[in-house]
Amino acid sequence: MSETPHPSPRPPRPATGSSAGRAVRSAERPVPTSADVARLAGVSRATVSYVLNNTSAVRISEPTRRRVREAAEELGYVPHAAARSLRAGHSRMVLLPTSRVPVGPLYSRFLNELQWALRRLDYTVVQYGSLGLDGEEAARAWAELRPVAVLSLGEADLTPHGVEVLKRSGAKAVITLGPQRVEGAHSLVMDQREVGGCAARHLIERGQRRIGVVVPEEPGLEMFSGPRLEGARRAAAGTGAVIEPLPLAYEEEPAARLAAAWRERGLDAVYAYNDEYAMLLMRALQDAGVDVPCETAVIGSDDLLLGRLLRPRLSTVQIDLVTGRHLAELVDRVVRDPDGTPERHDLMGARAIHRESS
Amino acid sequence: MSETPHPSPRPPRPATGSSAGRAVRSAERPVPTSADVARLAGVSRATVSYVLNNTSAVRISEPTRRRVREAAEELGYVPHAAARSLRAGHSRMVLLPTSRVPVGPLYSRFLNELQWALRRLDYTVVQYGSLGLDGEEAARAWAELRPVAVLSLGEADLTPHGVEVLKRSGAKAVITLGPQRVEGAHSLVMDQREVGGCAARHLIERGQRRIGVVVPEEPGLEMFSGPRLEGARRAAAGTGAVIEPLPLAYEEEPAARLAAAWRERGLDAVYAYNDEYAMLLMRALQDAGVDVPCETAVIGSDDLLLGRLLRPRLSTVQIDLVTGRHLAELVDRVVRDPDGTPERHDLMGARAIHRESS
Repeated sequence: MSETPHPSPRPPRPATGSSAGRAVRSAERPVPTSADVARLAGVSRATVSYVLNNTSAVRISEPTRRRVREAAEELGYVPHAAARSLRAGHSRMVLLPTSRVPVGPLYSRFLNELQWALRRLDYTVVQYGSLGLDGEEAARAWAELRPVAVLSLGEADLTPHGVEVLKRSGAKAVITLGPQRVEGAHSLVMDQREVGGCAARHLIERGQRRIGVVVPEEPGLEMFSGPRLEGARRAAAGTGAVIEPLPLAYEEEPAARLAAAWRERGLDAVYAYNDEYAMLLMRALQDAGVDVPCETAVIGSDDLLLGRLLRPRLSTVQIDLVTGRHLAELVDRVVRDPDGTPERHDLMGARAIHRESS
Repeated sequence: MSETPHPSPRPPRPATGSSAGRAVRSAERPVPTSADVARLAGVSRATVSYVLNNTSAVRISEPTRRRVREAAEELGYVPHAAARSLRAGHSRMVLLPTSRVPVGPLYSRFLNELQWALRRLDYTVVQYGSLGLDGEEAARAWAELRPVAVLSLGEADLTPHGVEVLKRSGAKAVITLGPQRVEGAHSLVMDQREVGGCAARHLIERGQRRIGVVVPEEPGLEMFSGPRLEGARRAAAGTGAVIEPLPLAYEEEPAARLAAAWRERGLDAVYAYNDEYAMLLMRALQDAGVDVPCETAVIGSDDLLLGRLLRPRLSTVQIDLVTGRHLAELVDRVVRDPDGTPERHDLMGARAIHRESS
């Protein structure tokens, strides 16, 4: 056993008085409490709390403050986040429910930008995995961490009652970014239908009449693919164009199968959900001898760099995402003025970018 | 003002007894406490705690339990996660420090798989943003949430003292996955040098002698790119091959500039950091009239689907990542037996996959 799980030598723990009621005789080292710190420093628990939470309302001498800090350091005592934030009247935690599906490059970049922007405003971002919880359970689990703000990015089913639970637990800002408004929350509405509508209008304007719309088979993407398909259908309504859904998994084999039977479908264009699926399908079509764009026009969405690297260069739908910085500033504004009227923004701007594939 | 920030009508709050010491007269609705629940249900605070934490050690009648739950529901009371976990003796929270850079597709998929696997073992995953905190501050901030396990995936500078702080706060498992071991933690060592070494050996074996190695200019990637470059250098040592670092930003313009001056460098091969940079550089080389692989061989790494969609098909280094399921099981094993000897695994298996670009 060459392992030294506790490499830094530590002083023996102080004897525990009977009043603390915590056994320290077990072989496992107990978690130190503020009572232990108080005992070692020779002060009250209240004093420990005042010092470690930097409360300025109470006058405590610098030597006492130092003694408390040293005792805490010696014992390895760390205050509880939730208890501390309650005493201080607020926390600086912004809670984000974690995405349930692997995040794409666009969202990953946005999330990173958001975290930096919130950090600059002195907030800490905590992403909370809410897999397997329904809306109400999730809201309750988030509330337990006493976040000052909750920023739900579309996937979690935050209900009006969930918003209520969060506000009652002290959250000053509850902001949702998703396909629908949520009552009681500041809702930024991103209408995915507009993405599909844009793609379909682009193809129809260029004379296409039989338009396939790729619908990813990967679970979790329905909240994007469903509205995008609907948006394409609406755009086609009354134009004489028809829309055909094309289920597709993100793998070479299914793409090759779809491409092999392509001519039987008689499609002259396809909106391929996003640029990554478009790259997959375009390769399969080219390998099957289908000429892009002459035989079939292809358009993706997201305007990723990879689309510009393809030949023919991929047409795409560019999506206006709210910037991380903008969103961080909104969080901060609502935290400072939680009783202001919820702002409502319709966020989804989208435009088709014509390159060579359509 | 058509907004109704609290849409569900709620009963008036009960009068607050003087002993609670909390003012409820402010216009802002106060956060309900367990004392409020106790008062409304006509029980002690201890009973509230026992009921809401599902403590089975204490016998409490079902009608009383129901009364407490109804009072909590009526007031919108949610217990504190940290306080609750301390009373229960453990939490089910696994804390992951958040990545500081936008995550790539490989890592995003891994993270998703890990979360599902932990969820199946009844853990909750919380990703904690540690931007702007140094190693010790970060460990202290994590400890405040009282996680039962901390899983540091390489980027956070977890020190032996940080491990100690976490264990003292009650974390049963501290597991690191990164380039180096951390004393006191269960360290899964991923040696990125092996990735670069694999790529360079592949090129050298195929007769290449002047090998460029792409080093991304994006901040945060040094922890991967540095060791990969070093691994390539080691592989070349003594073989007569030379290694030339090629700084590159992930944009078309810099790639075009690099490609325009390509022939002056006299390189006959390039390891392009990963498949995405390889796609970028290969396109730029082809646009500049450099034949791949005849004039210059190209290899990436990560074995992404997109590499198989390119023409020529991209050679790559496939990296053995620990699976999310394996890692979740390790977390659970260590939580159950925290005093076991830290397991040490050397994880980074890597192998070159030859396709058409090299």
